[in-house]
Amino acid sequence: MSNPVVLQNLKTLFNPHAVAVIGASENPDKLGFHVMKSLTSGRFNGTVVPVNPGAKSVMSLPAFSSMGDFPGEIDLAIVVLPAKQVPGIFQECSRKGVKGIVLISAGFREIDDSQGALLQNTLADLANQAGIPVIGPNTFGMVNRQIDLNASFTPEFSRLPKGGIALVSQSGGISHLMGFMAMRQNAGISKIVGLGNRLNVDFAEMVPYLMGDPDTRVVALYLEGLDEPRRLMEATKQTRFVKPVVAYKTGRSRTGDRASLSHTGSLAGRHEIYAGALKQSGVLYVDSAERLLDAARALALCPLPKGGNVAILSGQAGPAMAASDVCEAEGMEIATFRAATQRVINELLPPLALRTNPVDMGPAWYNASAIEGIIGAVMEDSGVDAILILMMFASANRAAVSGFSELLLKWKQQKPVVACLIAPPGIWDEEVSRLERGDALMNVPTPERAARTLALLWEYENMKRRSVGVLE
Amino acid sequence: MSNPVVLQNLKTLFNPHAVAVIGASENPDKLGFHVMKSLTSGRFNGTVVPVNPGAKSVMSLPAFSSMGDFPGEIDLAIVVLPAKQVPGIFQECSRKGVKGIVLISAGFREIDDSQGALLQNTLADLANQAGIPVIGPNTFGMVNRQIDLNASFTPEFSRLPKGGIALVSQSGGISHLMGFMAMRQNAGISKIVGLGNRLNVDFAEMVPYLMGDPDTRVVALYLEGLDEPRRLMEATKQTRFVKPVVAYKTGRSRTGDRASLSHTGSLAGRHEIYAGALKQSGVLYVDSAERLLDAARALALCPLPKGGNVAILSGQAGPAMAASDVCEAEGMEIATFRAATQRVINELLPPLALRTNPVDMGPAWYNASAIEGIIGAVMEDSGVDAILILMMFASANRAAVSGFSELLLKWKQQKPVVACLIAPPGIWDEEVSRLERGDALMNVPTPERAARTLALLWEYENMKRRSVGVLE
Repeated sequence: MSNPVVLQNLKTLFNPHAVAVIGASENPDKLGFHVMKSLTSGRFNGTVVPVNPGAKSVMSLPAFSSMGDFPGEIDLAIVVLPAKQVPGIFQECSRKGVKGIVLISAGFREIDDSQGALLQNTLADLANQAGIPVIGPNTFGMVNRQIDLNASFTPEFSRLPKGGIALVSQSGGISHLMGFMAMRQNAGISKIVGLGNRLNVDFAEMVPYLMGDPDTRVVALYLEGLDEPRRLMEATKQTRFVKPVVAYKTGRSRTGDRASLSHTGSLAGRHEIYAGALKQSGVLYVDSAERLLDAARALALCPLPKGGNVAILSGQAGPAMAASDVCEAEGMEIATFRAATQRVINELLPPLALRTNPVDMGPAWYNASAIEGIIGAVMEDSGVDAILILMMFASANRAAVSGFSELLLKWKQQKPVVACLIAPPGIWDEEVSRLERGDALMNVPTPERAARTLALLWEYENMKRRSVGVLE
Repeated sequence: MSNPVVLQNLKTLFNPHAVAVIGASENPDKLGFHVMKSLTSGRFNGTVVPVNPGAKSVMSLPAFSSMGDFPGEIDLAIVVLPAKQVPGIFQECSRKGVKGIVLISAGFREIDDSQGALLQNTLADLANQAGIPVIGPNTFGMVNRQIDLNASFTPEFSRLPKGGIALVSQSGGISHLMGFMAMRQNAGISKIVGLGNRLNVDFAEMVPYLMGDPDTRVVALYLEGLDEPRRLMEATKQTRFVKPVVAYKTGRSRTGDRASLSHTGSLAGRHEIYAGALKQSGVLYVDSAERLLDAARALALCPLPKGGNVAILSGQAGPAMAASDVCEAEGMEIATFRAATQRVINELLPPLALRTNPVDMGPAWYNASAIEGIIGAVMEDSGVDAILILMMFASANRAAVSGFSELLLKWKQQKPVVACLIAPPGIWDEEVSRLERGDALMNVPTPERAARTLALLWEYENMKRRSVGVLE
């Protein structure tokens, strides 16, 4: 059962005015150094309070021997001290009226020594009595991009693009993998939360909180193993389809299961049972970190397709064929255009190459308005539910891309558009980035991945429909 | 049947001293402009001869009205003129003693009009009589990185990393997709060849040629449909396991098949038949452009695993679990370390987290020599056939990566090592690139992809073993 005071305080934990770093340091070999960097190198405009009995200042900020010495209120305490010192710090947090803790320190339930689990139980009791939600222990921390709060040991997370995806993860490694991917692809993030050993904040607490978080449009979960999977299922079931939830779970293999036990103190459990239960509670289930990000991003950026008929508009035939194959294999149809649409295309393209679906727009490389006309006609076609736009561009066909990119922003509100617009790295990276930034365009690096992402949107729409059917 | 003179001349086609551009232009709306850029912006140190009756010079090089006017020999002619002018050019090439043609122009067998096919037949007769191999028509061209020859309309291909992968493709779009991927991942390329409509140079000609090409270590094929698939199968069968060949074929779906007919004038054909026949002739068969590059790169860089036992050494537990799942699903085993290896690991890592396989090296983030020690011990373990090294690194654990990277280069000769070393983009990109450059390290962007790539090496090794068994 969730502690109601703990839940109430989650909002303050993620939106603090004053943040103390317990174990702040200027030694780059200490996590307290990196946490200070994270808090101070971004644009967070709350107060940062380094706490370290041995320092007068840390990174030019006045340091305090203890939180008690700081004259103002502390909303959030980030703790990086060795495990055995943490109970004392929790008592201090309670006295100070701290509303949330990010406990980065390791050495609790995840270690071989049973003392770790005992210590974690002690902390849980302390935190629950005080009504303090705790992210961790054994976590890299958390990030709330909306207020530029980087409460993690990774300063680079201050550069994450802002947007609607909240990632809640049982693994710091996967969080970093996905964070770096999001940076590379300009996928907008609202929050990244490393749950670690989940003292009193677990998926079952995070999902309802994020459903009410105005900055979050989609919730992405990375799971290994849970003590009480039922609590998560109930949480997702209660809020299902309020906002999309996507999940990726590892520990499918025997080895993974064993690793999960050591890593987070929980057995990964039978994979099929999790998958089935999650799907039943309205969660889109994926099988890799890359697809977790692709699915979350598409759900954040695109309307859902009203049917499975896809139009493939491509600057080259090969990528269109690759995408066709994936669409059909994943249960979507290659749409047949209405006569009026086909007429427009036939007028705009010479009688060379592909003019039916998929459309090879190659012959119109030097005619940006023809490309715009084709995309516009297909967007208006009532027989088309979703659109893939594929183009590998370089010097020779660069002009073809520049024309339609602005129009995509308008069109993409009507029907889902997933793009694979790719340019040589280091040359027109910036041009591709411009299309992606501010969550303007759902763009992925390969045609196959674009098709698979569209199929995930269609899968989610179908899950939603079936669920409505069941409920009626 | 391949024309023997055509085959003999392929070597000169790819290694010309003097290259003429028929239709060279200074107008950026013309392909003749981009081809000139490609030839002159790289480091090609042969002679470039612009041919254009209306120009005295093109891009500061003296232009000629016809090839005949150029006083020296021409080895390679790149043709970008409209289709109907091409037969005359071919006759001129024959008179001039040209040894190879790259025919970029479109408007032949791929168009709706039957005149296109007739024209292509005329050209084939002319080329075969003259013994001139022709890349194309309807191609972006080709690139030979070894001599910095960029005979394509994509100047950016002059920046492709040099290495052992030859890509032969039926699609310009897929060639560009893979070329840009190779640039992004520092995957070394020997040649990229866009076959287009395959006048008289088809896969069956390219495979034997590349088997004898000293710069090529692995051949990657992208196929759509072939008129005479048997010719390719025979070519790959005759040279099987001389060098690895990997193939990706689209046109699995009905739509893809129809598209292939329009695009290249050939039916894609029954997918299963191709897959089966290719596998029987020793070709590793993959299902996406990304895997085509990953497989080719791994085969070019890594020794083959002698068994299916994988060690997973990771900086974080989550990515290790993700990789474990994929390894087991793809038929590899998570190795059990020998006692001596386990002892070394237990000495080097604290009794926290994962010390058996997979190994979570997280606790040794600040101890580069411990990480080196672990990797070294695992490399020497006779029960380990292949190694995955996974690390998401940023400020806090940057030191962990710097230590072992040099040593990887030594170790990777003994056993296949596939890495997923990932840093925040724009911050330590350069550090990751340094590890990848010069084909130093097989590095991919996700742990799942690393595991799948290793599984492809194991699949290839198994195919080889079965084949040897059959032959014995």
